[in-house]
Amino acid sequence: MDLTRSAAEALDAADPLAGFRDRFAGVDDGLLYLDGNSLGRMPLETPAALARVAEQEWGRGLVGSWRSWIDVGTRVGDVIGTGVLGARPGEVLLSDSTTVDLYKLLVAAADARPGRDVLVCCADDFPTDRYVVAGVAAARGMAVREVPADVDEGLDPAVLYAALDERVTVVVLSAVAYRSGALADVAAVTSAARAAGALVVWDLSHAVGAVEVDLAANDVDLAVGCTYKYLNGGPGAPAFLFVRRELQEQLRQPIWGWFGQRDQFEMGPAYDPAPGIDRFAAGTPPVLAAAAVEVGARLVAEAGIGRLAAKGRAMSALLVALADEHLAPHGVALASPRDGARRGAHVTLAHPHAWQLTRALVDRGVVPDFRTPDRVRLGPAPLYTRFVDVWDAVDRFRALLQDGGWRAYPEERTRVT
Amino acid sequence: MDLTRSAAEALDAADPLAGFRDRFAGVDDGLLYLDGNSLGRMPLETPAALARVAEQEWGRGLVGSWRSWIDVGTRVGDVIGTGVLGARPGEVLLSDSTTVDLYKLLVAAADARPGRDVLVCCADDFPTDRYVVAGVAAARGMAVREVPADVDEGLDPAVLYAALDERVTVVVLSAVAYRSGALADVAAVTSAARAAGALVVWDLSHAVGAVEVDLAANDVDLAVGCTYKYLNGGPGAPAFLFVRRELQEQLRQPIWGWFGQRDQFEMGPAYDPAPGIDRFAAGTPPVLAAAAVEVGARLVAEAGIGRLAAKGRAMSALLVALADEHLAPHGVALASPRDGARRGAHVTLAHPHAWQLTRALVDRGVVPDFRTPDRVRLGPAPLYTRFVDVWDAVDRFRALLQDGGWRAYPEERTRVT
Repeated sequence: MDLTRSAAEALDAADPLAGFRDRFAGVDDGLLYLDGNSLGRMPLETPAALARVAEQEWGRGLVGSWRSWIDVGTRVGDVIGTGVLGARPGEVLLSDSTTVDLYKLLVAAADARPGRDVLVCCADDFPTDRYVVAGVAAARGMAVREVPADVDEGLDPAVLYAALDERVTVVVLSAVAYRSGALADVAAVTSAARAAGALVVWDLSHAVGAVEVDLAANDVDLAVGCTYKYLNGGPGAPAFLFVRRELQEQLRQPIWGWFGQRDQFEMGPAYDPAPGIDRFAAGTPPVLAAAAVEVGARLVAEAGIGRLAAKGRAMSALLVALADEHLAPHGVALASPRDGARRGAHVTLAHPHAWQLTRALVDRGVVPDFRTPDRVRLGPAPLYTRFVDVWDAVDRFRALLQDGGWRAYPEERTRVT
Repeated sequence: MDLTRSAAEALDAADPLAGFRDRFAGVDDGLLYLDGNSLGRMPLETPAALARVAEQEWGRGLVGSWRSWIDVGTRVGDVIGTGVLGARPGEVLLSDSTTVDLYKLLVAAADARPGRDVLVCCADDFPTDRYVVAGVAAARGMAVREVPADVDEGLDPAVLYAALDERVTVVVLSAVAYRSGALADVAAVTSAARAAGALVVWDLSHAVGAVEVDLAANDVDLAVGCTYKYLNGGPGAPAFLFVRRELQEQLRQPIWGWFGQRDQFEMGPAYDPAPGIDRFAAGTPPVLAAAAVEVGARLVAEAGIGRLAAKGRAMSALLVALADEHLAPHGVALASPRDGARRGAHVTLAHPHAWQLTRALVDRGVVPDFRTPDRVRLGPAPLYTRFVDVWDAVDRFRALLQDGGWRAYPEERTRVT
């Protein structure tokens, strides 16, 4: 691989997605923003979409606008589902937070497999996933099998398969590991779990908009995910959940609310879950926030997940090669799978002083994020990050290691996201 | 009571809150908007607040803005709690939807009273309240006692008290009934339930911003509520929950997520709920939507709940008197408590053709809402509705009844909110 800056420039010149960069705010501010995997950039269209929903639909249309808002969860859900995730229409609902959606689907799945008493998750999965599993297990008197993962290489499928037996009811797993970026084999794990009589709830938070997920082709049953990362839906944007069409009527989620009710405005005496994906809704949908999600998801769908994933793989390959060349000599180790086919779109590096390095990089105009215990996570979002940004970021990282400027930063960690 | 239009104009001229009307969008559009109890009007400041959070905090500040966003749930929660509800700081959290918040607190309360197996709610309460109670009871093998209420006069406290015994763990009740507007005696019910060893979760959705709730003075333990009605937070705006300070550490909610975790960014292996109200959070807070809630809640706090409640009582008294005078002769009956001390800020009227009347009123520039089976609900929000609007609305209602124009509308109901 040609690791010169001009080679990176050439990749940008040939990038079919290059034009999308100009549709985001702040891209000319000189910042090398490599934290799109934590909070995606703001699409330039978003403020106008928010203003339209606020001023016209709410301010002028008032309560009458519910005629168009009533199905916002499924409308934006379909943009994500059919536009980005390879789902069929009516399989994805925008609703609640990833945490709440995971809770709903996990309980629904566990209820659908009575007599089984073990939940499986990954010991290195994102905290909310592990905590939700622990909470559901505690409430139901179930056991949790936390399958160990290599913190750099991700979960070994053989280790997971060994944990699947006739006691297992649900497996919760991230398609892309939040720390290492390790990519799971969604089809194989889903199939193995099904063969063992269990259901998998996939957390797509670090996958959606970054890699091909192909929910239908991979025969996925259940999934949840976040819209404020690669979907650029805004801070704390509502999450989504996916339930395969054939499973919908078999499942019931535990939070019985009026937006999950059949003939909702009859306000009938007993809860009777709506047909289809609506039954997985609980309360009133977040209309304002959904407008921002819709803008972000439509941009991703327009770019095309195939092209985005290909660019993501190319950028992370460049990042790994540059890190090997320029950062490894300074004691920075790759903490993601080396095999590009086993990675999502972000790359993680390890260094004993990762916290100080992260703070120093931010002050030098490179925004990665820190993850415990000693990780610097770099997420070049393919929709608006250039190859040359990756090159420049590694170059500044190299300079920082060479000049030792990070040593001036306190070792003690402060609260960050 | 002087029921002339000029008397209504005089009330407006003497209204200390009159100036707040000019801080809302659309108030000069000629519409008599009496559905602020369903969806409050948009404050004029809201679009700018949304734009600021989107363009500056998100677009420019990017992930670094989490330094100010991280406590958005408690910051806006305190605006509602201390500014509107008479709570102490750190007792209210903006989070999730009313449905999800009710679920969290109901399960937390039930877990805190082991050995008891009955949940109590009101048979005429809002659907989501009844459904959440039914769902939690079904999941836990508990029984539900649905206490009957007079659909017009509301719940008779004696009937409720008779349902309280040593089996009852939690009572769920609306402070203001969604259909009739009947106002519960929050202090008395809370005290009676406590004497029976039970906890009450109050639903404040139709009370917050409309009547004095005085959570601390009334010694309330638990409450949830909606911000898109009298708080004017926008369609589907996030809800709030209240947990009395002394109870917080005794309770655990069931959806264990990373925003409820102590030292969240340590991402530790086991869930350990944060001290204080944060433990009732689940996922990432809705930052964009919270900005709109903050604007609306600050306006209500600025106006003062005492003044708002007084104006609400005066407006609903006028509305009842005008309805008696001009609508009752046409077969429209009061379907709210006649005693103003037993009403919230909205008034409900009954007529066999309520659906057609509601549609016809909308087309004549009066916006009430329809509620099953035969109710027209009129909610003059005290923050931006004038006494003369109430007068004009009843006058148009009277004219409609006189000319029979509503008969041209189909009897069959279509989906509405």
